[in-house]
Amino acid sequence: MTGNTFGSSLRVTTFGESHGRAVGVVIDGFPADFEIDEAGIHTELQRRRPGQSKLVTQRQEREQFEIFSGVYEGKTTGTPMMIMVFNEDTRSKDYADIKDLFRPGHADFTYFAKYGHRDYRGGGRASARESVGRVIAGALAKQLLAKFGIAIVGGVVQVGRVRARHYVWEQVERNELRSVDPDTVTAMREEVEQARKERDSVGGIIEVVATGVPPGLGEPVFGKLDSAIVSALMSLPAVKGVEIGAGFTAAAMRGSEMNDEMDASGFRSNNHGGILGGISSGAPIVARVVVKPTSSIPREQQTLDTQLQPRTISTKGRHDPCVAIRGVPMAEAMLALVLGDALLQDLATRGAREPYSPRPYLKLGKHLD
Amino acid sequence: MTGNTFGSSLRVTTFGESHGRAVGVVIDGFPADFEIDEAGIHTELQRRRPGQSKLVTQRQEREQFEIFSGVYEGKTTGTPMMIMVFNEDTRSKDYADIKDLFRPGHADFTYFAKYGHRDYRGGGRASARESVGRVIAGALAKQLLAKFGIAIVGGVVQVGRVRARHYVWEQVERNELRSVDPDTVTAMREEVEQARKERDSVGGIIEVVATGVPPGLGEPVFGKLDSAIVSALMSLPAVKGVEIGAGFTAAAMRGSEMNDEMDASGFRSNNHGGILGGISSGAPIVARVVVKPTSSIPREQQTLDTQLQPRTISTKGRHDPCVAIRGVPMAEAMLALVLGDALLQDLATRGAREPYSPRPYLKLGKHLD
Amino acid sequence: MTGNTFGSSLRVTTFGESHGRAVGVVIDGFPADFEIDEAGIHTELQRRRPGQSKLVTQRQEREQFEIFSGVYEGKTTGTPMMIMVFNEDTRSKDYADIKDLFRPGHADFTYFAKYGHRDYRGGGRASARESVGRVIAGALAKQLLAKFGIAIVGGVVQVGRVRARHYVWEQVERNELRSVDPDTVTAMREEVEQARKERDSVGGIIEVVATGVPPGLGEPVFGKLDSAIVSALMSLPAVKGVEIGAGFTAAAMRGSEMNDEMDASGFRSNNHGGILGGISSGAPIVARVVVKPTSSIPREQQTLDTQLQPRTISTKGRHDPCVAIRGVPMAEAMLALVLGDALLQDLATRGAREPYSPRPYLKLGKHLD
Amino acid sequence: MTGNTFGSSLRVTTFGESHGRAVGVVIDGFPADFEIDEAGIHTELQRRRPGQSKLVTQRQEREQFEIFSGVYEGKTTGTPMMIMVFNEDTRSKDYADIKDLFRPGHADFTYFAKYGHRDYRGGGRASARESVGRVIAGALAKQLLAKFGIAIVGGVVQVGRVRARHYVWEQVERNELRSVDPDTVTAMREEVEQARKERDSVGGIIEVVATGVPPGLGEPVFGKLDSAIVSALMSLPAVKGVEIGAGFTAAAMRGSEMNDEMDASGFRSNNHGGILGGISSGAPIVARVVVKPTSSIPREQQTLDTQLQPRTISTKGRHDPCVAIRGVPMAEAMLALVLGDALLQDLATRGAREPYSPRPYLKLGKHLD
Repeated sequence: MTGNTFGSSLRVTTFGESHGRAVGVVIDGFPADFEIDEAGIHTELQRRRPGQSKLVTQRQEREQFEIFSGVYEGKTTGTPMMIMVFNEDTRSKDYADIKDLFRPGHADFTYFAKYGHRDYRGGGRASARESVGRVIAGALAKQLLAKFGIAIVGGVVQVGRVRARHYVWEQVERNELRSVDPDTVTAMREEVEQARKERDSVGGIIEVVATGVPPGLGEPVFGKLDSAIVSALMSLPAVKGVEIGAGFTAAAMRGSEMNDEMDASGFRSNNHGGILGGISSGAPIVARVVVKPTSSIPREQQTLDTQLQPRTISTKGRHDPCVAIRGVPMAEAMLALVLGDALLQDLATRGAREPYSPRPYLKLGKHLD
Repeated sequence: MTGNTFGSSLRVTTFGESHGRAVGVVIDGFPADFEIDEAGIHTELQRRRPGQSKLVTQRQEREQFEIFSGVYEGKTTGTPMMIMVFNEDTRSKDYADIKDLFRPGHADFTYFAKYGHRDYRGGGRASARESVGRVIAGALAKQLLAKFGIAIVGGVVQVGRVRARHYVWEQVERNELRSVDPDTVTAMREEVEQARKERDSVGGIIEVVATGVPPGLGEPVFGKLDSAIVSALMSLPAVKGVEIGAGFTAAAMRGSEMNDEMDASGFRSNNHGGILGGISSGAPIVARVVVKPTSSIPREQQTLDTQLQPRTISTKGRHDPCVAIRGVPMAEAMLALVLGDALLQDLATRGAREPYSPRPYLKLGKHLD
Repeated sequence: MTGNTFGSSLRVTTFGESHGRAVGVVIDGFPADFEIDEAGIHTELQRRRPGQSKLVTQRQEREQFEIFSGVYEGKTTGTPMMIMVFNEDTRSKDYADIKDLFRPGHADFTYFAKYGHRDYRGGGRASARESVGRVIAGALAKQLLAKFGIAIVGGVVQVGRVRARHYVWEQVERNELRSVDPDTVTAMREEVEQARKERDSVGGIIEVVATGVPPGLGEPVFGKLDSAIVSALMSLPAVKGVEIGAGFTAAAMRGSEMNDEMDASGFRSNNHGGILGGISSGAPIVARVVVKPTSSIPREQQTLDTQLQPRTISTKGRHDPCVAIRGVPMAEAMLALVLGDALLQDLATRGAREPYSPRPYLKLGKHLD
Repeated sequence: MTGNTFGSSLRVTTFGESHGRAVGVVIDGFPADFEIDEAGIHTELQRRRPGQSKLVTQRQEREQFEIFSGVYEGKTTGTPMMIMVFNEDTRSKDYADIKDLFRPGHADFTYFAKYGHRDYRGGGRASARESVGRVIAGALAKQLLAKFGIAIVGGVVQVGRVRARHYVWEQVERNELRSVDPDTVTAMREEVEQARKERDSVGGIIEVVATGVPPGLGEPVFGKLDSAIVSALMSLPAVKGVEIGAGFTAAAMRGSEMNDEMDASGFRSNNHGGILGGISSGAPIVARVVVKPTSSIPREQQTLDTQLQPRTISTKGRHDPCVAIRGVPMAEAMLALVLGDALLQDLATRGAREPYSPRPYLKLGKHLD
């Protein structure tokens, strides 16, 4: 029931291939009478746009979106919005050589195994370009969440072996690496450029945080909020792991250390990352995703062709040496979509209680923000 | 659309609270005419059963399941199977003291925030006891997968600060820690006992592996196989992170190192963890989940009551000092359910191609197993 | 994605076979903190109970339901409610003779074709007994709807060739035929008894009406309210058609006649049956379902056996000569479930508009009630 | 969970408004490697096209569709197909006068009640123009079904008071009324023209039939095949009722008459309309839908404006005097989508049985075709 559709109440369906005519999205379930901020969509698309700096792919796309339905006189009508970006700079001939080859680390082999017939150009549907539709939908979700006081930020916290030590969220968009730590920018840039020089690529870790989330979002047990978040983030290309709050460090912790105590001002710490039992606690929601080094590298590698014969490959085309950088707006978009969906679902049952047991959102004091 | 139901083609709905009358499951979409191996269900339930050793909770439950529907003369009929275990050893009075308190690290606060009215006894629905239904369904999914040559194993790879160094899967069920590494059993046991002595608890990491998975399972882009797996594993209680293949180590890797080369014998390495572009590759599927230290500890901690007034709490009741141990069969069950669902979905479109483009599963040589 | 689960926000999964151990239901998504009226559930179950009069099947079931989860101290907790009725009066040996025969008009052949292995006793899952779970869930949905001023009634409007001429809803439960027209009770009874005497059965038509429904329920285009209603009603056993408002008579009408004009007091007529463009209008929702004559008749009929060899059959067992009578509470239950689900879905988006464009339900004057 | 998406395994999402930029569809779950017959899509679109004859609306649309994704070198890739038709002949100024008025029989009032803000031009999303996307998707579903030997036909069986007496399916596309009965064409045309002369409109009934459907499609109990069919057909604009097989005539029938006996050649009659217990029987699937007379009529009618003040209205614009005629390809499309979806779902569980209990489709002799 998923496939290319995400969400239950706020539903997003993306379509389009990297080197096809267009990539786009249908958004269904978005509330009516909402004044769309088109500039806000534009901003998000520019953040994920290729060609922003030397650290990302040099493909040139203006990323001009067009709204085909669901908006009338600048406001949503409650019917599905179809929003699309036409592909412009598709140098498909770059891919003629690898038409019959499986690029290591790519989805070439698995798409071939599953579908047989595939659009190999630029990774087709498995390309990061598919995320254009997600970023558009995420931008709208962010605008909706903002009405409820919910804000989402994201940044790079690790590139290769360089980790952020302290977080200055305001600095993220002021450095081309989107590092949360201004002091690590130079070292991170070095990590990327070194990899590129060596005809290689490098991985990274992104952190996304949502603040202002009211307690109560999430639908246990399979619709847990953290379950939905990791599913959403994992659906992004190149992601190999996701963690919430203390994440993998929890393995070596004691309960007395991990448990977040509470007092009149709320939670004293946030090892739980804003989610307990699958339901938002009101503390900031904190998620981290690891993005593997870009699979497309110009080095020679051993692989197979579609006849399953051994071949040597070296990938040309224009690629991000560190895909984590452009992954930030994508990860934020997915978090926004999950929260928008969870908010609508929670409002349904909250609204149903109006006649017999009205229940406003519980307010805690605030240690954390 | 999720809530308490998991899966699209193979659908599982669990119900029941820790100290209610029963916990159970409805399984829908399971193929007909399948001879159920009841002993196999029993075995899995015994693996997750409390009271197995001193390292787990001392609650005594025989975990005798009863089949109420969907099976006739030992075989499935294709209609929903309802299978249930009656709760036996519920000492609900243990919980009277904490009726109005939010146990730190528990879902008490968030359930209260969301639902208002809740069954506080033993965590109610947020208890690990809810997983009884998952393990039953997972046992059946395993039996179905076995017909396709797919096998699932799981074990503990880290307890507190002790990590497994080498893997001997055959040893997992022969040590009470379910460690994959027989050489670390003593140190792991020490880690758990030390924590218990200090009235504390400790975290851990579980690894689950599926072998024999044919290439082609998974439905990009939001129904990616890894997206479904992390969602399923994250829905288990106490899990704070999930990774596939190289996982978080990919951040510090280079593309040339991460990319798994191929030759006539298949993949030479398995950093991708058996999934590329969200679709199974035929290599073993490898996932790791981090389980936080048990929240219920007898130490005093600061918290709030339902009036949001500060209080001190120390949790009694019978609890696992390291919940990762009993988490192994739960994690295996969730992986089995994801693969069963993905298999059915893939068979649908594979079957549809029969008249115009029949497509058997692609066979690779085997480096890995 | 449906199978045995109905609804999106208010989700109902039924399980159980006619001659199995039990029939029951899991209800998920029902709002928390709701005080359950168990007597109300009992009442609805008694209305669909066999053995009420000579006009229905003589199977004796007390229909005592038990709540296994999701309710604590008399109130819902927001977690799934599992409610079940154990089967008592199962004379399965009545069915030994027809084990290998396909009863004409029954699902025997199609279940065999689809599943191969089946529980033939009493129709198994295809029995009207499956509706016990629906009636339980519908009773709860009715209780929720009542908080919003929505009420549902149902009655028989045709038995065989006898049609109701005027409607006195208050009389429905005072006659054993559940006829809406007290003046036709005698003729309808005659129709049923005549059929039974002739070792035959007879069809009928049920009408269900929901009043107090606010305008705005329903999710175009595939989630239209009438689309959901006909789907729900058609899922009941023996139903062969469903219509809304003017229904099939609209074929012979002119637009000027069909269109319901409006004035300050609302709609002047209700040919639209309370739904326009798939969305509730505030006028009463009116649906009619045709129930075919019971398939099980003692007369000899030609059929096949499971070897596809010609055979003669005459069905024994205890059966309703006119299944429309007991179909009334079933049809009401399904209408209640659809409206409960649509209400929750509508509340989600209504609630989302609170911060930017609050939208209370539109009030019309009332011509109709 | 539905809204603008239909289907579980074969999923269709439509978007677009009557007077917006375009109307279109995203099709997800369609099997890969399928050679698309674009001419077949064109043919179906021309059948539903306005302006075909004097009996339908005079809006002029060429209905040229464009494929934006999911097809590569003429074959499906298994990824979502987005197919769209740009609107051309939108005379939106025709609607300026009724901007604030609720046209009787239309969705104007209910959309206003639900959404507040709406695109009133030409009915916006509630227009029959939305069905362009359905017909495109239905055309593809028909092509897929054809590979399994399943064919779908449809025709008009009643216009106003004129009913078809005998069926000659081959004649349907040879008369502008799409009547199944060539002998009633003249009378039907008279019925339409008379209505138009009187500035009025007239209703009708459409019958759709699927042949070659193997036994076993449909997922009881809520995913019954007839339940899915009536839901799909009811989602079309202007439909007020749906019936299967004997339909509403079953009310006055006896069981001995209604039950379809079987012999070695299969079913002797088809009162069940090809579906028993919600599962296809192998006999032709027969469904009828009633289409109300077009709501838009030039006559004066009483209504309200958006301030709920009484007003008089007479609808201009270009409208079908009998919308049943163009409804035929729409109804066929919906039946094709349901069967395509049910086929994929059935193939999933059939395929799963391959290793332990392979089950080919059961073959009956054929009385009926």
